[in-house]
Amino acid sequence: MENGHGGSAKTAGKVISCRAAVVHGPGEPFVVEDVRVDPPQNMEVRIKILFTSICHTDLSAWQGENEAQRAYPRILGHEASGIVESVGEGVTDMEAGDHVVPIFNGECGDCVYCKCEKTNMCERSGVNPFKTVMVSDGKSRFSSKEGKPIFHFLNTSTFSEYTVLESACVVKIDSQASLKKMTLLSCGVSTGVGAAWNSANVKAGSTVAIFGLGAVGLAVAEGARARGASRIIGVDINPNKFIKGRVMGITDTVNPSEIKKPVNEIIREMTGGGVDYSFECAGNLDVLREAFSSTHEGWGLCVILGIHQTPRLLPLHPMELFNGRMIIGSVFGGFKGKSQLPHFAKECMNGVVNLDEFITHELPFEKINEAFRLLVDGKSLRCLLHL
Amino acid sequence: MENGHGGSAKTAGKVISCRAAVVHGPGEPFVVEDVRVDPPQNMEVRIKILFTSICHTDLSAWQGENEAQRAYPRILGHEASGIVESVGEGVTDMEAGDHVVPIFNGECGDCVYCKCEKTNMCERSGVNPFKTVMVSDGKSRFSSKEGKPIFHFLNTSTFSEYTVLESACVVKIDSQASLKKMTLLSCGVSTGVGAAWNSANVKAGSTVAIFGLGAVGLAVAEGARARGASRIIGVDINPNKFIKGRVMGITDTVNPSEIKKPVNEIIREMTGGGVDYSFECAGNLDVLREAFSSTHEGWGLCVILGIHQTPRLLPLHPMELFNGRMIIGSVFGGFKGKSQLPHFAKECMNGVVNLDEFITHELPFEKINEAFRLLVDGKSLRCLLHL
Ligand SMILES: [Zn+2]
Ligand SMILES: [Zn+2]
Ligand SMILES: [Zn+2]
Ligand SMILES: [Zn+2]
Repeated sequence: MENGHGGSAKTAGKVISCRAAVVHGPGEPFVVEDVRVDPPQNMEVRIKILFTSICHTDLSAWQGENEAQRAYPRILGHEASGIVESVGEGVTDMEAGDHVVPIFNGECGDCVYCKCEKTNMCERSGVNPFKTVMVSDGKSRFSSKEGKPIFHFLNTSTFSEYTVLESACVVKIDSQASLKKMTLLSCGVSTGVGAAWNSANVKAGSTVAIFGLGAVGLAVAEGARARGASRIIGVDINPNKFIKGRVMGITDTVNPSEIKKPVNEIIREMTGGGVDYSFECAGNLDVLREAFSSTHEGWGLCVILGIHQTPRLLPLHPMELFNGRMIIGSVFGGFKGKSQLPHFAKECMNGVVNLDEFITHELPFEKINEAFRLLVDGKSLRCLLHL
Repeated sequence: MENGHGGSAKTAGKVISCRAAVVHGPGEPFVVEDVRVDPPQNMEVRIKILFTSICHTDLSAWQGENEAQRAYPRILGHEASGIVESVGEGVTDMEAGDHVVPIFNGECGDCVYCKCEKTNMCERSGVNPFKTVMVSDGKSRFSSKEGKPIFHFLNTSTFSEYTVLESACVVKIDSQASLKKMTLLSCGVSTGVGAAWNSANVKAGSTVAIFGLGAVGLAVAEGARARGASRIIGVDINPNKFIKGRVMGITDTVNPSEIKKPVNEIIREMTGGGVDYSFECAGNLDVLREAFSSTHEGWGLCVILGIHQTPRLLPLHPMELFNGRMIIGSVFGGFKGKSQLPHFAKECMNGVVNLDEFITHELPFEKINEAFRLLVDGKSLRCLLHL
């Protein structure tokens, strides 16, 4: 099949040489260098990345926060969009030229989890921060010019002009959708909106509190607003976040550094006993406790989205669960990626969720180190890198 | 209204002198003595107790395990059945002669919780171990012959021939039901069966593990069996419990003291990854962790029923919630007592749940100290005291 974008006819079955941002050690600057990308093997897809952005999971992998997950050299990146260049044997649901978004939490469609409606876990291609190679042969598809393997990251490795993924981790979307915006569905926006829609199932007229107003927290706000929540309280110690927040559905704000009482007391006063749903998007256990306690006794639901890199246990007493509050974790917004993201993409195209506000910066791929700096400094929600 | 049982015509509006088992200090033997029981006030009901039994909450209150809850002299007891002697002003849903069971977790029908379908909490008459007097006037309805007040317990105080309760804590049941058996619905059986039916919503064909095979754990088994669970694994360190358990739906047993591996590993091996639902009925945090880990990743639900008298926090890491397992607390089996117990009583009359096996002993009321001993020694499930 001839294809104008990916040039599949010319490159299919061959090794592709292209540019990728490689990290060679924890916290070391990304080096944009030539790499070789092998053809996709059985049930794999090679895609040409057009846009990629950076999310906090990239940040902590780059900094090597979790020792067990350190593997170098490595190509990070997991939020992106692109076009299928070629598909490996056995892939029947995509072909060269298809518009796609990679998903770090795959859906093989065949395992016990994929067959269960209650979960978006996947035994074969689910999120696995320890995975550095492909499942089919235990090898990497990336190598340096000298032939040295370069490790994969989070099923995706999108900081590269071309990448190879298991087909379970590639979602085909409407070719009319803006690929630029669809990048956001690859992680942050799906994680936040899905937490509100799938994990919490926010009802119209309900009250919501969101702790941490980064891209994920704001996506929760967008999701809650779209569901008709009557009140969406944003909590952050950086008041600059409130400006954007107001645009994205936040109706009330609380800055913990400006109040004398615990946040949960303030929120319970504001809402006559607590919110119906709270979302912890900060990855901090003290914040988690505030989020839990901010919900209404009897039915309050606290959803954790933040990654907790701590040896500390849950700061909750078992008897606190008898007050009718619930706490759950949400991964990738509870979305089963391949089944549900195409429909979610259409809803975004129809304006149900507003994606425009999330892209605060755009830079050429070569300026990836600058883009990381923007995120570290809390200046960007999403900085889109153009490949 | 003339009534053969309670003799309302003669006693209504008057102080009743009767026998009650009074506890005068933590762990001190019960003294069966004469007490005075005042008439029911606004929205209160005075009932003649016919049967009462003892549950672990009585045990810990008797032993004064929780210092903050100590109040003496006091009339304990919360699992019972009886007949309405007279009703106070404003009570319209009951009258003298009605067959009733007291509930420690009341349902006023009017508060924000009672009006919410998601919870069985009640702001006014919910379970409150610190409450020692009536809500309407902050006074006790019990006093000694010398006129000294005797404290109430858990909205019920059933170790007495007569007791006064808020009408929110009295459930009228079918007069054809065996009051003897209905005693069990007052706490233990409702707590266990309801945890399976309401809190967990156990589905036909699913797998269940129950940690701790006392009356509540066995009631969970009965509930799961009635719902058609395909496998019900009972876990207890006392193998004698398995004999009864087999009669009540337990299909497999695990004795932690007889195995070398952690229980959760055994159960996950037995069930191909874990059970759909686990129930913690032991009130022990190490057991709780085993119960949680025994469920299947992705959808496993762990329900806590045991009371955890410990300063220790939940032994769970926040990231463990991202594996799709859930943990919730269940109080009174999630039953809204006044709304739902009459129907549950009918289901028991129809044999949906088998109550007979729970009553292992019967004694006259005067032998209450002996009945406590049976429970402490783990010899009885329920010892029914006849008043
Ligand atoms: Zn799968
Ligand atoms: Zn991400
Ligand atoms: Zn109420
Ligand atoms: Zn009880």
